[in-house]
Amino acid sequence: MLTEKLAQACPDLCIDTDPDVLQSHGRDWTRFREPQPAAVVFPANLRQVVKLVKAARQLELALVPSGGRTGLSGGAVAAHGEVVVAMDRMRRVLEFDPVDRLLTVEAGTVTAAVQSFARERDLFYPVSFAAEGSASIGGNIATTAGGIRVLRYGLTRDRVAGLKAVDGRGRVLELNRGLVKNASGYDLRHLLIGSEGTLAIIVEATLRLEPTPPPSAVLLLGVTSMPVILDLMAELRKGFSLSACEFFSAEAMHMVCKARALRQPMDSDPPFYLLVEFDLPSEQSEALLERAAAVLEYAIERGWAVDAVLAQSQLQASELWAYREGISEAASAHTPYKNDLSVRLSRMPAFLSALEEATRRSFPQFQVLWYGHVGDGNLHMNVLKPADLDTVEFERMCKELSREHYELTARFGGSISAEHGIGLLKRAFLAQARSEAEIALMRGIKQVFDPDGILNPGKLL
Amino acid sequence: MLTEKLAQACPDLCIDTDPDVLQSHGRDWTRFREPQPAAVVFPANLRQVVKLVKAARQLELALVPSGGRTGLSGGAVAAHGEVVVAMDRMRRVLEFDPVDRLLTVEAGTVTAAVQSFARERDLFYPVSFAAEGSASIGGNIATTAGGIRVLRYGLTRDRVAGLKAVDGRGRVLELNRGLVKNASGYDLRHLLIGSEGTLAIIVEATLRLEPTPPPSAVLLLGVTSMPVILDLMAELRKGFSLSACEFFSAEAMHMVCKARALRQPMDSDPPFYLLVEFDLPSEQSEALLERAAAVLEYAIERGWAVDAVLAQSQLQASELWAYREGISEAASAHTPYKNDLSVRLSRMPAFLSALEEATRRSFPQFQVLWYGHVGDGNLHMNVLKPADLDTVEFERMCKELSREHYELTARFGGSISAEHGIGLLKRAFLAQARSEAEIALMRGIKQVFDPDGILNPGKLL
Repeated sequence: MLTEKLAQACPDLCIDTDPDVLQSHGRDWTRFREPQPAAVVFPANLRQVVKLVKAARQLELALVPSGGRTGLSGGAVAAHGEVVVAMDRMRRVLEFDPVDRLLTVEAGTVTAAVQSFARERDLFYPVSFAAEGSASIGGNIATTAGGIRVLRYGLTRDRVAGLKAVDGRGRVLELNRGLVKNASGYDLRHLLIGSEGTLAIIVEATLRLEPTPPPSAVLLLGVTSMPVILDLMAELRKGFSLSACEFFSAEAMHMVCKARALRQPMDSDPPFYLLVEFDLPSEQSEALLERAAAVLEYAIERGWAVDAVLAQSQLQASELWAYREGISEAASAHTPYKNDLSVRLSRMPAFLSALEEATRRSFPQFQVLWYGHVGDGNLHMNVLKPADLDTVEFERMCKELSREHYELTARFGGSISAEHGIGLLKRAFLAQARSEAEIALMRGIKQVFDPDGILNPGKLL
Repeated sequence: MLTEKLAQACPDLCIDTDPDVLQSHGRDWTRFREPQPAAVVFPANLRQVVKLVKAARQLELALVPSGGRTGLSGGAVAAHGEVVVAMDRMRRVLEFDPVDRLLTVEAGTVTAAVQSFARERDLFYPVSFAAEGSASIGGNIATTAGGIRVLRYGLTRDRVAGLKAVDGRGRVLELNRGLVKNASGYDLRHLLIGSEGTLAIIVEATLRLEPTPPPSAVLLLGVTSMPVILDLMAELRKGFSLSACEFFSAEAMHMVCKARALRQPMDSDPPFYLLVEFDLPSEQSEALLERAAAVLEYAIERGWAVDAVLAQSQLQASELWAYREGISEAASAHTPYKNDLSVRLSRMPAFLSALEEATRRSFPQFQVLWYGHVGDGNLHMNVLKPADLDTVEFERMCKELSREHYELTARFGGSISAEHGIGLLKRAFLAQARSEAEIALMRGIKQVFDPDGILNPGKLL
């Protein structure tokens, strides 16, 4: 019924109520809620989004913006009769300027398409993560996606030079317009970045591209404990320009090797792996490789590392990256409960120890994979569902575990969501992450942007 | 009277009503308003700031946060009986961690002190600008100060990993706590950055330091026109890693040479100068200098440049920088009316032509100095007051000129304040910079953070 009224109000809008589409477009990569949207709409342009928001206001319809649906916190899940606003038809490149190195795209554009567009013009879009082949730019911005190149290039937040968005009153906001410097009042662009569709629907983004980085080498180290990873990083930072610094546990390595039928890269079976990528410009290649050998020798002498593999070619490098990049997919068969925590780098070893201990104590039966972007202090935890446990009970137990983990996170001054957002799944824990005053201010801001509460209600706040 | 009530409410707060202090602390570097604060207070710690804000709320006192008072838009001017909150006593270093490369300081800490602190630990704080010897970190954040290293390192905004601040209700906000990644709700830190003291009083900041950059060389080029500066930059970007890219007009060069009794660096007198700084790591120094010579030859052949001076030593480099860095001071004797505009880099030449033409047409009697951070699309305009014109009339004429310039800025998609903020002087022009919807949202946000309007009223909004 409401769908019919919406169709009347927005006669040129593509509205779909096919059960398959409701299923596919009513959720993201999380599997803890059944999708139940009233409809999925596919706006084709800004004008249609404006009209849709104005109609939704009048009809009191809740709108759930939806990009590539690869979210891991349920931010794009429509489980309560909402209207999903799918950006599948808004994937055009709108503008590119090689002098400014700015690329303007519609919000539904896939991350990998932006990477390709840049590469073809001898430029580089550095945001890169497992879901880049499906995740949309709008979704990246809504959760300020991070990934594996944050160490050098920062987050999606740092790439956004301009945003066009529609607020909860249907007003078009055109924010920052691609400028480097703009100190003319509150930076609403940064407020929308990371707001998970609760303040405005992002329609277009202007992204800053980078020069193509120099050639690089990838070094995979088998390390003896978490604390020595920091020592190793400190050594490596002295002599190399690092562009990525990832870690993962032996369990994660085993699971990837099994899922992808890969051979383990080393004869030994160290408890942790550290993967670093560093610049290797051809004119310095010899000197840098000698330096790498020296650091490795030093690390083995000190008992930090047991073995290492160095990749210089593109092919070898992607083989080493496969061990790290395959983890999330390998885990997905086990309905993983994911936490995405961050602390300051210096606190990471003690934090991981505390998390591991709490997990062992409360839920010794759980298998947990640890991995993450150690260079940024970002730790991904995947609790694997035991095959004989049902999903509802598993989620309940994981929430209990999460509560403990989030208390530890607060004690270590960290964040309960580093790059996945709060969405639906972490909403109950927001008060563990943000103070009462901050939450009150956030609610006030929400009210200012979306007085009728039609934009992604029940998410984040 | 109010001052006495304030003293009663905050018995341990240092309150000063000495006329000299009211004069010195009631204004910034602008000279268009007479300072008339009711009092200047010097809080010593966070607790006193909280108490002060709560008292100000009850007593309906307006508070003007004040750092190094080097602002150029009147953001820290107290001309209507406000209480100035001077951060002079809050200049302590609170925490430093070499692994995280994070430095936490009180808001009154001087920018140059942060630079020194970093240098002494073999690290680097890249924000650098003319007033760095007086400007405070809190003030930098309130206006998101830019300066000469934005090209590589970004703005003050990009340095701030954490903020502690007191909102208009006297609530302490502790934002982001030094994390790299934190996707747990709206990023209030970024909302406070650039808010010019209108949303909260910044009390502490956690700043991200960088590794010491490699040795560099400085090249000063005499160029034949503004458009060729972009061609030159494009050539230079191909072969060099640029860390700064500044330009200034012949008039600016003449004024600096006169004020500082310097010799002009070249025999010729080109209409524009381009100053670039680029990395010169010792192992590549020979190759890079050869490359620089080749680019220069190419530029002269093409008629882009007429002459150039290259500085390799620190001393020579600072001599060349002096021509650029001395402009603001040299102009200050002439009560300059300053505009601080930015556009996308690619639009800069056409934008400057349009501005020059408008100025010549409307006020042919004015002498205008042009200079700025061309790498960031940031143009500083200094209109010099003719000696025989009184200040009030001069300001009126400049505002008329500004209105024309801001119209052009809007037409070129630019910003009317790149790095100086809106403050008092540009407030009347906000509607030329931001849309009606944006201003309405900003007012709403102001209301959420400061419901009684006690924080820097009459500034920005």
